[in-house]
Amino acid sequence: MKNDVAVLGLGSMGAALADALLAAGHRVTVWNRTAARADGLVERGARRADSVSEAVAAAELVIVCILDYADVGTLLEQQAGEALAGRVVVNVTNGSPEDGRAMAARVAALGAEYLDGGIMAVPALIGRPEAFVLYSGSTKAFEAHRGTLDSFARSHYLGEDPGLAPLNDLALLSGMYGMFGGFLHAAALVRSAGGSVAEFTTTLLVPWLHAMSGALPAMAAQTDSGEYATTGSNLAMQVSHDALGEVSRDQGVSPELWEPIHSLMTRRVADGHGDEDVASVVELLHRR
Amino acid sequence: MKNDVAVLGLGSMGAALADALLAAGHRVTVWNRTAARADGLVERGARRADSVSEAVAAAELVIVCILDYADVGTLLEQQAGEALAGRVVVNVTNGSPEDGRAMAARVAALGAEYLDGGIMAVPALIGRPEAFVLYSGSTKAFEAHRGTLDSFARSHYLGEDPGLAPLNDLALLSGMYGMFGGFLHAAALVRSAGGSVAEFTTTLLVPWLHAMSGALPAMAAQTDSGEYATTGSNLAMQVSHDALGEVSRDQGVSPELWEPIHSLMTRRVADGHGDEDVASVVELLHRR
Ligand SMILES: NC(=O)c1ccc[n+]([C@@H]2O[C@H](COP(=O)([O-])OP(=O)(O)OC[C@H]3O[C@@H](n4cnc5c(N)ncnc54)[C@H](OP(=O)(O)O)[C@@H]3O)[C@@H](O)[C@H]2O)c1
Ligand SMILES: NC(=O)c1ccc[n+]([C@@H]2O[C@H](COP(=O)([O-])OP(=O)(O)OC[C@H]3O[C@@H](n4cnc5c(N)ncnc54)[C@H](OP(=O)(O)O)[C@@H]3O)[C@@H](O)[C@H]2O)c1
Repeated sequence: MKNDVAVLGLGSMGAALADALLAAGHRVTVWNRTAARADGLVERGARRADSVSEAVAAAELVIVCILDYADVGTLLEQQAGEALAGRVVVNVTNGSPEDGRAMAARVAALGAEYLDGGIMAVPALIGRPEAFVLYSGSTKAFEAHRGTLDSFARSHYLGEDPGLAPLNDLALLSGMYGMFGGFLHAAALVRSAGGSVAEFTTTLLVPWLHAMSGALPAMAAQTDSGEYATTGSNLAMQVSHDALGEVSRDQGVSPELWEPIHSLMTRRVADGHGDEDVASVVELLHRR
Repeated sequence: MKNDVAVLGLGSMGAALADALLAAGHRVTVWNRTAARADGLVERGARRADSVSEAVAAAELVIVCILDYADVGTLLEQQAGEALAGRVVVNVTNGSPEDGRAMAARVAALGAEYLDGGIMAVPALIGRPEAFVLYSGSTKAFEAHRGTLDSFARSHYLGEDPGLAPLNDLALLSGMYGMFGGFLHAAALVRSAGGSVAEFTTTLLVPWLHAMSGALPAMAAQTDSGEYATTGSNLAMQVSHDALGEVSRDQGVSPELWEPIHSLMTRRVADGHGDEDVASVVELLHRR
């Protein structure tokens, strides 16, 4: 049996979510502050609600996807109010872990269960196998609605603490920005030597990063255990000669994306950890 | 017909290269400063040379793999000398682009052809399909010996300028360190919330980085063309609210690996490029 679902907020992401629900055969009620934005979805089979409380009344599951977290609480309290009692709210608006915990409390006060969501995809990837969505909050709500949530993308449940989805979302983003920063430095070096960045990236960098990402699980296990004894190239060896910094400067490439990691490795060696692997640098970022 | 190959330097990498050549059926002559280090290879079928000139005399192709680039020229000039005439020298010792160009000139003065090599693998990966080696320098030498060099790993030839292999090697390393830096920040965030970094890395981060690496070829094409008009999330949106920095600080995680890329994006927006994609940051690292 397919669920009745309401989607509040039909920007580029909310509309993609509503379309995925329709494609999966759910009955979907949609609401958007600017009503005209619902027209396409209504043509494709969604029911238009003229108010938030009307949308909520029709649904067991309420998806919220608007721009700012700060507006979500007000929207639910002032425009949905009592109609929310007994519903499950899944809020995929991006916020902080603290935002998520505060929202869970506000939603509980309205008599509803709460899940915070972090969408790891752009709208065009919704419904595609490489996309996934992080959820945290009510286990009961997740288990009851998992099948429906899977219409968006693979669902990944992280635990009862509603702050976990936003925290892991930001952690994944920091991983992505690290990779992008590494790409930018590499691209600057290749371009400085007159090479084709496109060819370098396709034939060398992407396969290399795929191969090197194979080292991450072992680095992660070191981070969990706090045991960093080297298994290959130790930190002392990695900083003994700053070839990357020197060549970058020679090529007229700013080393500003390389310096922070180099300086962390250097500090770690100075602290007496030269015989450890690079994962040990995490101890300088966060004290366990 | 299999080549006669000499390998000078039998540290962990040189020994792995010599073993790969033996496995491919070549006649391999080995030399190491500390002679005893050749014993295992001799048992596995290599011929021991008692001097560099003896090793070189027996071979068409001479592989050099010692610790420091600074010692390579002296070794070849003082210990191989005239015996090098007519040979091809492939030097896989790590150095800078300038080192590579200078070495090509010194080797040419000894009457030999020169290739500089950058090994993108640890010794245990030599001979495995995920490993590759960058080469630059004499095209003639590369074409003549490509079959033999393929015994080590996939060979990737970059051009006549001997500096290209070391430059691309360093560019790939900068990509790897970027990815590792992103991992370290992510690991610190997850650990700060009491999560398992191993589980996060295996189930979320690695698949996410694989998916996001799909964006790199398009970013590379933007870098080559200098056309950065946004195709998705523009720079202004990405820096409008520094959630990653704020949450990191709240969690007691140092933002020092995030700040440089965030500050570059912010500067780029301030310079009037807020409607461009993140690849446009390369313009702040290197002026075309
Ligand atoms: N797009 C992505 O790639 C992506 C990826 C992951 C997560 N997200 C997250 O998804 C959320 C929505 O993003 P989006 O890309 O869909 O944004 P968007 O296309 O700019 O749409 C914003 C939506 O929010 C609504 N809205 C804004 N303020 C509101 C308020 N005070 N009350 C009611 N509705 C309000 C807008 O309604 P009007 O039409 O009336 O203005 C519109 O429907 C954000 O939290 C974003 O971080 C987006
Ligand atoms: N290991 C890796 O993961 C890796 C990856 C890519 C590239 N590389 C590069 O490969 C090269 C060798 O690394 P490795 O890991 O094999 O190092 P290693 O295990 O420390 O071995 C160093 C080798 O260099 C020789 N050597 C040092 N100074 C010498 C000199 N003045 N004259 C003659 N021989 C000398 C040593 O001879 P003795 O036995 O007499 O001391 C030994 O054979 C380096 O340039 C390294 O950057 C290594």
